[in-house]
Amino acid sequence: MSIAVIYGSTRENGNTEWLTDQVIHGIPVEKVYLNEFEILPIKDERHSEAGFQEVFDDYNTVLDKVLKHDILVFATPVYWYSMSGTMKLFIDRWSQSLRDKKYPNFRADLAKKKAFVIVVGGDNPSIKALPLIQQFKYIFDFFGMSFEGYLIGKASKPGEIQHDKKAIAAAIHMQQQLKEQLKSNK
Amino acid sequence: MSIAVIYGSTRENGNTEWLTDQVIHGIPVEKVYLNEFEILPIKDERHSEAGFQEVFDDYNTVLDKVLKHDILVFATPVYWYSMSGTMKLFIDRWSQSLRDKKYPNFRADLAKKKAFVIVVGGDNPSIKALPLIQQFKYIFDFFGMSFEGYLIGKASKPGEIQHDKKAIAAAIHMQQQLKEQLKSNK
Amino acid sequence: MSIAVIYGSTRENGNTEWLTDQVIHGIPVEKVYLNEFEILPIKDERHSEAGFQEVFDDYNTVLDKVLKHDILVFATPVYWYSMSGTMKLFIDRWSQSLRDKKYPNFRADLAKKKAFVIVVGGDNPSIKALPLIQQFKYIFDFFGMSFEGYLIGKASKPGEIQHDKKAIAAAIHMQQQLKEQLKSNK
Amino acid sequence: MSIAVIYGSTRENGNTEWLTDQVIHGIPVEKVYLNEFEILPIKDERHSEAGFQEVFDDYNTVLDKVLKHDILVFATPVYWYSMSGTMKLFIDRWSQSLRDKKYPNFRADLAKKKAFVIVVGGDNPSIKALPLIQQFKYIFDFFGMSFEGYLIGKASKPGEIQHDKKAIAAAIHMQQQLKEQLKSNK
Repeated sequence: MSIAVIYGSTRENGNTEWLTDQVIHGIPVEKVYLNEFEILPIKDERHSEAGFQEVFDDYNTVLDKVLKHDILVFATPVYWYSMSGTMKLFIDRWSQSLRDKKYPNFRADLAKKKAFVIVVGGDNPSIKALPLIQQFKYIFDFFGMSFEGYLIGKASKPGEIQHDKKAIAAAIHMQQQLKEQLKSNK
Repeated sequence: MSIAVIYGSTRENGNTEWLTDQVIHGIPVEKVYLNEFEILPIKDERHSEAGFQEVFDDYNTVLDKVLKHDILVFATPVYWYSMSGTMKLFIDRWSQSLRDKKYPNFRADLAKKKAFVIVVGGDNPSIKALPLIQQFKYIFDFFGMSFEGYLIGKASKPGEIQHDKKAIAAAIHMQQQLKEQLKSNK
Repeated sequence: MSIAVIYGSTRENGNTEWLTDQVIHGIPVEKVYLNEFEILPIKDERHSEAGFQEVFDDYNTVLDKVLKHDILVFATPVYWYSMSGTMKLFIDRWSQSLRDKKYPNFRADLAKKKAFVIVVGGDNPSIKALPLIQQFKYIFDFFGMSFEGYLIGKASKPGEIQHDKKAIAAAIHMQQQLKEQLKSNK
Repeated sequence: MSIAVIYGSTRENGNTEWLTDQVIHGIPVEKVYLNEFEILPIKDERHSEAGFQEVFDDYNTVLDKVLKHDILVFATPVYWYSMSGTMKLFIDRWSQSLRDKKYPNFRADLAKKKAFVIVVGGDNPSIKALPLIQQFKYIFDFFGMSFEGYLIGKASKPGEIQHDKKAIAAAIHMQQQLKEQLKSNK
């Protein structure tokens, strides 16, 4: 039982990362910072004769990192009421992996994962990030992944998240959830 | 009064484009295919001392095309229950334009636009694309843009959209809306 | 194959009824006006020792009318961004029927129904009625009912619905759906 | 500065009440149990010549209790992914009060209130109660009420809520919010 944290942030040490740190404090995780990799937009070739063409970027490297783990924590700032484009590029490419012979069990593999979501936004996220939470739910349902919990923080300026006591309390609860998962499912 | 259609598709002549064609049939528009341009993920430098750094890609070129028009039609396939990453990259960068001296009136300029949305998805979009519609609403509200209407088509395989009679009927209605807008607000 | 229309309106010949008339024009249906019946609020006795007590009102009469049919059209004005209290009282009582020996197959019976939804609201319903549509989806999913389509009209004052051309076009489409259902599944 | 808790439950000492007790522990509130009163479904007479007719039930009594307070806590079980019919009947009648000469400042009065929401549901409420939260938001926005926070608990059988550690942690946070409100705005 191991954990990957997939970061969609584009700023280092930002609010999303800080809140995620409260969750994973004292827990071993592999951190995957998507913005350190080049991931190109998907080109929809599902229906072209030759199918999806190989793409020369870091997507498969990132995917391999992620697939090794049992628990996936998606941590993204809320950009325009949705996940960051950086994270969206990564997830869009799943459509390609679903048809990639290198990943013959992609869907079944993801079905076994447990998912957590951490989002931080500046504009009333406890209401305006709810469509994003619903979208994550639909994504996880598509694969049969279990959606174990989500956490919405409110912050805009650097450091502001440290004043969101509600989110911090919820982060500590998510930390306990993660610890129990690690224990019970070894 | 003029119209820009902003395409988020990554496949040529796909279902989204076909449905959009039903809407804009006989109406002069400028078509902006986002996937023909290089638009890099935003780097959140809102809070760095130097602010946003100039990015050397096609974003400003695209933005300039869009800003010339009064009516913006956002046409995107539904990828993972949300707009395509290609379109998300474009919209994410608006955060930069909001702070860009080259666009001192960016927010006020967008406030004057009228927005339409056309989305096409394969997995029960009349329900599962609703969070995406809500996100567009929040985006337009942020700027004070008027959200004139949306259209949800159902299709996955090439050409499948042509069987979605409900979407086609709604497309014809949207066409009339556009024509009335063009007439009344010259 | 037969159709029940379940009205949640509290005003006669209102906008919701008018829009529904466009849908059912020329189609035999049984109309069930919930406001003509007394339906008391559910009393949650799921967990009391004696279970649900018999309620002396018209609920079972109404339910029997509804269950005879294969296609259920729920037609309700949008009151405070949700179905009318009149319709909610009816649906809330389904929790009782799920445990009522008189309806041993209640859940399985509903699973076979096809559902349509017609709602009319005054305050930007194409956006603000979407949570209501999502709730109907969850209700139908609970039973395994198939959610065949929904229709959102905009109107507040008497007669105003007649100006909602988009809803009228969609009503005609729903009419065709109903006719095809009646034909194909005799 | 004073607080009313408006209960939509139909069972005494249920999960919703228990969770609400965690929030209001040690805080003076007036409890309004809607199911102890007779509140009839609204009859939409907005557009009839004579307007709304007087209704002989307990609605105005309940409304008067509520309007005395500055902070309103809406505590309802989730019935069919929405507020209970009992609570819906109460809120539906607000349309009447908006036009009632006895309440000439109804809208302005509500605009000054601060609102909290506590909901408890059995079927994945952290996702499936989100449309209900969005509806409360629209209701509060209509009046210009400030939506201070919401709390979603998961429970079905009696007492089950006591195992929802996440909700309990959030309840304690809401308690602190309430205490701060009481202090700061005397």
